[in-house]
Amino acid sequence: MALKNAFYAQSGGVTAVINASACGVIETARRHSDRIGKLYAGRNGIIGALTEDLIDTSLESDQAIAALRHTPSGAFGSCRYKLKGLEENRAEYERLIAVFEAHNIGYFFYNGGGDSQDTALKVSQLGERMGYPITCIGIPKTVDNDLPITDCCPGFGSVAKYVAVSTMEAGLDVRSMAETSTKVFVLEVMGRHAGWIAAAAGLAAESEDQPPHVILLPEVPFRKQPFLDAVRRSVERFGYCVIVVSEGIREEDGRFLSDSGSTDAFGHVQLGGVGPIIASMCKRELGYKYHCAVADYLQRAARHVASKTDVDQAYAVGAAAVEMALDGRNAVMPTIVRKRDEPYQWEIGCADLAEVANRERGLPPEYIREDGFGITDACRRYLQPLIQGEDYPPYRNGLPYYVRLKNASVPRRLGDTFTLR
Amino acid sequence: MALKNAFYAQSGGVTAVINASACGVIETARRHSDRIGKLYAGRNGIIGALTEDLIDTSLESDQAIAALRHTPSGAFGSCRYKLKGLEENRAEYERLIAVFEAHNIGYFFYNGGGDSQDTALKVSQLGERMGYPITCIGIPKTVDNDLPITDCCPGFGSVAKYVAVSTMEAGLDVRSMAETSTKVFVLEVMGRHAGWIAAAAGLAAESEDQPPHVILLPEVPFRKQPFLDAVRRSVERFGYCVIVVSEGIREEDGRFLSDSGSTDAFGHVQLGGVGPIIASMCKRELGYKYHCAVADYLQRAARHVASKTDVDQAYAVGAAAVEMALDGRNAVMPTIVRKRDEPYQWEIGCADLAEVANRERGLPPEYIREDGFGITDACRRYLQPLIQGEDYPPYRNGLPYYVRLKNASVPRRLGDTFTLR
Repeated sequence: MALKNAFYAQSGGVTAVINASACGVIETARRHSDRIGKLYAGRNGIIGALTEDLIDTSLESDQAIAALRHTPSGAFGSCRYKLKGLEENRAEYERLIAVFEAHNIGYFFYNGGGDSQDTALKVSQLGERMGYPITCIGIPKTVDNDLPITDCCPGFGSVAKYVAVSTMEAGLDVRSMAETSTKVFVLEVMGRHAGWIAAAAGLAAESEDQPPHVILLPEVPFRKQPFLDAVRRSVERFGYCVIVVSEGIREEDGRFLSDSGSTDAFGHVQLGGVGPIIASMCKRELGYKYHCAVADYLQRAARHVASKTDVDQAYAVGAAAVEMALDGRNAVMPTIVRKRDEPYQWEIGCADLAEVANRERGLPPEYIREDGFGITDACRRYLQPLIQGEDYPPYRNGLPYYVRLKNASVPRRLGDTFTLR
Repeated sequence: MALKNAFYAQSGGVTAVINASACGVIETARRHSDRIGKLYAGRNGIIGALTEDLIDTSLESDQAIAALRHTPSGAFGSCRYKLKGLEENRAEYERLIAVFEAHNIGYFFYNGGGDSQDTALKVSQLGERMGYPITCIGIPKTVDNDLPITDCCPGFGSVAKYVAVSTMEAGLDVRSMAETSTKVFVLEVMGRHAGWIAAAAGLAAESEDQPPHVILLPEVPFRKQPFLDAVRRSVERFGYCVIVVSEGIREEDGRFLSDSGSTDAFGHVQLGGVGPIIASMCKRELGYKYHCAVADYLQRAARHVASKTDVDQAYAVGAAAVEMALDGRNAVMPTIVRKRDEPYQWEIGCADLAEVANRERGLPPEYIREDGFGITDACRRYLQPLIQGEDYPPYRNGLPYYVRLKNASVPRRLGDTFTLR
């Protein structure tokens, strides 16, 4: 019997290091070419499997695959496409199995967040039932750091580093301008449900006079007066105030602040999300001149300032996924297990997908300072190791050299087409 | 007679490398301790001179001064405070001379943009007339790259590099998400009157399929329909569109597309918010899902990804300023003179402040692509060398190690106080 091929797909929002996981998967599979046939990637994630649009990674040179380690974003394309429950849209799962069967695929590596781990679990269950057993391994990835069990999620450490570095740098800027100009600086960061990214900005401060002076977390309901008091206090004590706000902060009634229809100082409806709302509130209520940055994709794409720890972990979970598959594990996800805070020591663990799927981990209460506007020492101890180390990409002509793969298609074998919902 | 002391001040918006110029000034002055006494810095720029709030840099260690080379923002504080014309507020100039006289200051080094060069020139003229001759040397600094005569302005190359790197990285992100999610990404960058920073994003593209697909420059009046056509074309051809927009773009009638209504101390309108306007226009008119980042201070503070060329030039103009003063030059500014494009060769030149003051240099027409949405090869040839080379700061615990000076005050000698306008 021919060797079973493998299928790898990237899912959801991409990160600075998801390609490092791809690199770990592909390099490890290549080292086991006696046991794994070809490694196919889904073009644009799971959609590539559903539409039988597969990429033949065996046509990429070893050098190109190695360069994935320092190339941000999803080299094969990703997608936001959640498979429904088995009962709701069984056709999608059956289609996946049909495509896998047509291409003799025996291994399914799915690199994503909670939803993706759930999909991997279901594919594993359905394959079994349909008489086409397939080894399904989830590979953790999310800048939101919200997967359970694993110490952290690859992708998060680099965003954390970017946000901490940017907060420190912009903070120095505001500090030097505050006497006559900008008194308040607002940085809006990602994190719709969990405040991990905003919390990471707290690493920039070694003492209370240093930025960020106020962190707004989605775990803490936004109350206007205590917030304004904290800003005024900071400006009065230190001359300026740096605020880091998570995009997902909510009012006490649970509504997102960014959905609240707030207007800026001039009565214009805000277009730019929660950062400008917070900034103009400081201007309107306290009279402070402000600047506001919205990091958006820059934060999760910033491979140029990635955390070496994060890159190493992203690669390691990719490599471990293949090793686990070859060890006969199924429906599992490699995890990061913290052995020690300082110096940081970690190793690869293994979690059942059933334990991981669809469970979110928010910032625990003991990581949030009592006033709600900062992080505790416990939080700092947790976060600090994750941004350790630099891992610069190579540069050419002043710019990072990021690889673009050939991404050649695998010839289709199924006659029909599949229409996505 | 005691050696004359020197005064150094930082002016206007700070940059990732203005402290490298300070480092050049101080280290060079220290090497000439037989000819220059102490070097004082103005706390918060020229305000420090007016209020006799001087910092004694001689109390900083050689090591701390050396670390300025890799520390962003203004280590002594900067300010937005433009001295008026001599006739309008002669008292301010007389006050400067009085403070200089009280502290035996014979050299005035002013590190800033066009307005600051104008101030340095006036101080030089007035000192002469008041019988207290003072050597005034301007040191170029502006992220806007809008000073005349000099090949470029220290501070610009690092913003250019940050913007090009960020555009490249976010572009890869959008590309991998575009199939099911974000089709349009907008990055708003600085540049009130001149499009140099937005133009620099063009360095990220090596071919027309690569981001940025559309650059919106203040030199090109914004016309909605051609813009929307360009965005649609890009999405149809490449699957997505990355737009880099200068904060200063204007409608055909000359109004800023985004005018927040408030003005800064120089009477300049405070801008911000054009990115979200452009992004939501793409959604409203074309139906594309978008993301939008506003780089704001992050771009000019990003010492972690500074251009080595820029750092070297910033240091060099600081060092040259001191050498020029000691050579008996007055009312001049060191410039960068380009000798060759590739490999880039430059040397230090010298311009009269009268030729520099209050003159702005925009992007020349031959640097703007015919359709107005991109840059030409000539522009690329000009910009490319300015982002060459990396010059990473040292890191501790995963974060850049940026120095904080002691900034000890010089005892006041004048009994009176001076009230700022």
